[in-house]
Amino acid sequence: MNRIICGYSLMVIYMKYNVEVRIALKKGMLNPETSTIERALDLLGYEVENTNGYNTLTFQMEGENRSEIKKKVEDMCQRLLTNPVIHDHEIDVK
Amino acid sequence: MNRIICGYSLMVIYMKYNVEVRIALKKGMLNPETSTIERALDLLGYEVENTNGYNTLTFQMEGENRSEIKKKVEDMCQRLLTNPVIHDHEIDVK
Repeated sequence: MNRIICGYSLMVIYMKYNVEVRIALKKGMLNPETSTIERALDLLGYEVENTNGYNTLTFQMEGENRSEIKKKVEDMCQRLLTNPVIHDHEIDVK
Repeated sequence: MNRIICGYSLMVIYMKYNVEVRIALKKGMLNPETSTIERALDLLGYEVENTNGYNTLTFQMEGENRSEIKKKVEDMCQRLLTNPVIHDHEIDVK
């Protein structure tokens, strides 16, 4: 419980949460970066396959509870962090 | 044990391993991408702090055992995947 009622006023305690957002291209999208890496590794003599990549963004955020934070981060992803047409994202709040 | 001796010949069994390489800027390095994101989020009304980011590269690789794979991937990081002057990396072989 994050709400503590003292006297007549309602005090809300904000906690700091660690957030991790993983952003990857949707399945089936061509990723020029990873295919270049795969080709370059091949030229150097390393055989790798199914190369894939994703970005992770970590930050701290204050809020009342996990679900509030998750909702805000979901908004942030839609408005700024990702391009919903080509990206998939996963949010972890700890 | 991955080596099986049959008759006079030595047969080596290669297995396919899933490799994950996380590449981040060394601590203390200025990351213009994350500081821009933090500023942009602030303009949109979201207060976040200690923003950080890293890239993850995943691929599959055939080899005799985990330690051989790890050694090869370490080489790959030094030669192509990272810039050892500014990047730290972590390797996971599964």
